[in-house]
Amino acid sequence: MVSAERSMAVGKVYLVGAGPGDPELLTLKAVRAIGEADVVVYDRLVPSSILATIADGVLQINVGKQAAHHPVPQEEINEMLVRLARAGRTVVRLKGGDPFIFGRGSEEAAELDQAGIPYEVVPGITAAQGCAAAARMPLTHRGVASGVRYVTGHRKANEPLDLDWKSLADPDTTLVVYMGLANIAEIVRNLTAQGLPGTTPVLAVCQGTTAQESRICAPLEALPVALKDVSFSGPVLFIIGKVAGIALERSARSDAAICEAISVVA
Amino acid sequence: MVSAERSMAVGKVYLVGAGPGDPELLTLKAVRAIGEADVVVYDRLVPSSILATIADGVLQINVGKQAAHHPVPQEEINEMLVRLARAGRTVVRLKGGDPFIFGRGSEEAAELDQAGIPYEVVPGITAAQGCAAAARMPLTHRGVASGVRYVTGHRKANEPLDLDWKSLADPDTTLVVYMGLANIAEIVRNLTAQGLPGTTPVLAVCQGTTAQESRICAPLEALPVALKDVSFSGPVLFIIGKVAGIALERSARSDAAICEAISVVA
Repeated sequence: MVSAERSMAVGKVYLVGAGPGDPELLTLKAVRAIGEADVVVYDRLVPSSILATIADGVLQINVGKQAAHHPVPQEEINEMLVRLARAGRTVVRLKGGDPFIFGRGSEEAAELDQAGIPYEVVPGITAAQGCAAAARMPLTHRGVASGVRYVTGHRKANEPLDLDWKSLADPDTTLVVYMGLANIAEIVRNLTAQGLPGTTPVLAVCQGTTAQESRICAPLEALPVALKDVSFSGPVLFIIGKVAGIALERSARSDAAICEAISVVA
Repeated sequence: MVSAERSMAVGKVYLVGAGPGDPELLTLKAVRAIGEADVVVYDRLVPSSILATIADGVLQINVGKQAAHHPVPQEEINEMLVRLARAGRTVVRLKGGDPFIFGRGSEEAAELDQAGIPYEVVPGITAAQGCAAAARMPLTHRGVASGVRYVTGHRKANEPLDLDWKSLADPDTTLVVYMGLANIAEIVRNLTAQGLPGTTPVLAVCQGTTAQESRICAPLEALPVALKDVSFSGPVLFIIGKVAGIALERSARSDAAICEAISVVA
């Protein structure tokens, strides 16, 4: 068996972005990679509607964090990918959004590099894009937002949020905060302290682009209070900036309201 | 005829991101929209390999800028979309990248809103994501780049580049500059003047994710000189930050070099 394994051709790993949630937002390349896979290694941000597209007989390995479950540590995931590829498998490592935007995909790529495993990276629609399109809210707009930036609001245990607040408090740049729900009060406090107007509109989206999508809109200064009235189940994305005001205007004009609850409570 | 047109149901417009160039990076939703379309209105950033996927009999309208051709003004494009939809057509407005990131898609959405035309926005893989995945270069990486931002290096005629250089010169954020080739010397001068180290690695990519993709890597301070030695045909994307160093390391270890010409000329 050992010699048979040794003579076996090494497999390949695809680091694949599954997009924001809607299975139609998978790329053709992601679909092809999933179709070639012997094994799919996925985490909790990949919705079941996408897992349902995986063919019978393909091994599915859940390495995601779930309430009451400890996630598989990143180092173990890295090793698992190398081990599966060395056993000749074609592996899809399926991650929510884009593997190279807050996805730790680069850590997996580094491990595969080091081990000499062939791999390919398949980009995915990141949550900011999916949520913006669904809400008809641009991320940039001439004269309103000259650029866009993505940061994470997640922090390591017992460490402060290490963000350059002065730079982030720019009214002409759309600011997208991933994984910021737990620390939103601190985020709002720091942004307003650095001069971002408290009236700046914010769109908060949970499970964007899925049938379970829920949103609220609120001015920045009212956001922590507004969030107390909703129960989001899943990671929340915050899009902060004048573009969120465009979404609100469009919502007002449309039959299908963009915000299920527009909480302008300030 | 007039009364027949009046009784005709109004059509629908899809504002669709075609992605960075590789036709496999279209989303399933984009493919479906193109399949439903009677008319596809496209611009110069949509490669011919994607136009080739459009079915025979679908009207294709080129509104793009091309050398020696004047582009169709944005206002005319907006009106064209409204007119086609009012004539009962299903229209795909196909744009390079993502329609809501530097795509002026939001201006088209505003016009459709105003006219009461039903429309849907289909996000696309933006150039930064496509080029990063192809070069195996993350846009964020723990301990290296805590976030990413997209700006445009394009300016209106005779106006200075209106960017907050101090905020952009952040060594811990990946900076992606779209459409910056014409003004790259000014961009480099401003970033280094604000303290971004001249040794910061930069990846410059032209026609990323296509068979014609070409790249150079150079330290920030050497970039304007390095660019004189290459002839890029098409828009160039600059990815500035320590993540570009990761791409270089991976390139050095790989059989398939990530940079066709690594010009470290400083």
